[in-house]
Amino acid sequence: MDEDLRFDGARAAQIAEFIEPLRVAPGRRVRLAEDFDPRYKADFLGKKDGEALLRTGIGVLAEYQRRLAAQETYGVLVCLQALDAGGKDGTIRHVMSGLNPQGVRVSSFKVPSAEELAHDYLWRYAQRLPGRGEIGIFNRSHYEEVLVVRVHPDNLDRQKLPPSARREGVWERRYREINDWERYLSDNGFKVVKMFLNLSKEEQRKRFLKRIDVPERNWKFSAADVRERGFWDDYQRAFSEMLSATSTAWAPWYVIPADRKWFARICAGAILAHTLIGIDPAYPEVGDEARRDLAEIKKVLEAEAPL
Amino acid sequence: MDEDLRFDGARAAQIAEFIEPLRVAPGRRVRLAEDFDPRYKADFLGKKDGEALLRTGIGVLAEYQRRLAAQETYGVLVCLQALDAGGKDGTIRHVMSGLNPQGVRVSSFKVPSAEELAHDYLWRYAQRLPGRGEIGIFNRSHYEEVLVVRVHPDNLDRQKLPPSARREGVWERRYREINDWERYLSDNGFKVVKMFLNLSKEEQRKRFLKRIDVPERNWKFSAADVRERGFWDDYQRAFSEMLSATSTAWAPWYVIPADRKWFARICAGAILAHTLIGIDPAYPEVGDEARRDLAEIKKVLEAEAPL
Repeated sequence: MDEDLRFDGARAAQIAEFIEPLRVAPGRRVRLAEDFDPRYKADFLGKKDGEALLRTGIGVLAEYQRRLAAQETYGVLVCLQALDAGGKDGTIRHVMSGLNPQGVRVSSFKVPSAEELAHDYLWRYAQRLPGRGEIGIFNRSHYEEVLVVRVHPDNLDRQKLPPSARREGVWERRYREINDWERYLSDNGFKVVKMFLNLSKEEQRKRFLKRIDVPERNWKFSAADVRERGFWDDYQRAFSEMLSATSTAWAPWYVIPADRKWFARICAGAILAHTLIGIDPAYPEVGDEARRDLAEIKKVLEAEAPL
Repeated sequence: MDEDLRFDGARAAQIAEFIEPLRVAPGRRVRLAEDFDPRYKADFLGKKDGEALLRTGIGVLAEYQRRLAAQETYGVLVCLQALDAGGKDGTIRHVMSGLNPQGVRVSSFKVPSAEELAHDYLWRYAQRLPGRGEIGIFNRSHYEEVLVVRVHPDNLDRQKLPPSARREGVWERRYREINDWERYLSDNGFKVVKMFLNLSKEEQRKRFLKRIDVPERNWKFSAADVRERGFWDDYQRAFSEMLSATSTAWAPWYVIPADRKWFARICAGAILAHTLIGIDPAYPEVGDEARRDLAEIKKVLEAEAPL
């Protein structure tokens, strides 16, 4: 509850400056391979530096979360996207573990159910939106609808869309629909922040090999992952277009260099911190009258004979 | 399953012509009291005429519904709004009772729960959207968010909106957000059709008195209804603005004259029929191969020794 636990102005400015190179400016035409280096690590020397910083940062994040929950006015939606082995699960574990799970809701979106497929494509995501005071994490998100669904159009077939909704321009339309939806959420107090964990093809190969070689990691690997790797270029194109079309003033995309896990986690923490600093949640003020009531109650409790 | 059970072209044109005076043309500036007569009854002589027509019509509606469900491509969302005693429940009972309840989902929206209030204002409505092949009926709908919430701004307080979302222009913003949402639904195969049961103040008075005088109807009446009646003019203004701002090419409003229940039901049935005619759902075609498979299976079943 210490006032000092919030980032001061100088620290807030540092964080903003640190994440600026990761942000996709609205309207910018992104070519992923040329514009963002998966091995970028700013001025950091190495893992040790990063870990200490992250530990301090998470303590402060937890205080912001308490304020967010107490105020119950704003909510945060973090959308995490990546290719396989990009580090989504690890990022959530490391960055969000210091937060109070009562106010964090992680939703993972896997293969849609028959009921989900029978609805409009945003339906299943809308169900899992955070409430006011909550931080919602989408582990994969509605952006799957313009990624995996685009790279494998048979997913679109399964959505039973009417012919008019399948015509040319379906992706542009979805970009617009998603932007409209996020603007609505943002205008109503739900800050949407989107992180793409940008992994190199070589680093993915290494991580896959590790998952095969280390028995404890075998469960994390399936042949399907390698099949998806075969569509690498298609995904790079789909990501590039998505980033270009859906990074908006109200819901920006950040491209996080993901080849170094420790650096990716610092970035994710910094982006979340920046978002919460922007909201600047405050504990609700207790009015004079309520304060007098509390003083009265205190007297009554104090006067009670100890049991 | 008879092909003849669909409305033919002439009948479809008749229905379209019949409902045209009820439709609010996009962009039209509505003044409810002057523009729409709650006692309008087209060329109908009386109740008897109407009831026979409705019975025939409902049989045909049921066939359209079967096709809609079999095709599983389009869905329909009917939003019903009215002042108290406007006849929403009766309209649903009379018009929708001939339909297969497996494909109809009625959702009534009453006072929102704490969990619902803690989310964005469209959240609870999005949860109840129909799936493909279904007809969803909203008994009161997301339009409450620009009606009762507008007439009684303490409802807006309970939504815990951030100050920026409460500024001037909140209703215009909501109109735009609702239009965007409905366009998204429409573009993705969910036809949204909106009916406002337009009751006169005098007819509401009569219906309230009946609810008090007839013991079997007492449960339908509460003192709160009369309190709301005190806000009659505010509601008329809120309805007029809502109709002006949210009747769109993709999701039109129909103002149904509601002083005569039998006529209101014919209107609601005709509007639903018009919507389904527009969709023109068809049974999925079975290909040659599947048909050959069916023939094979038939042989096997016929060859089986009767038990």
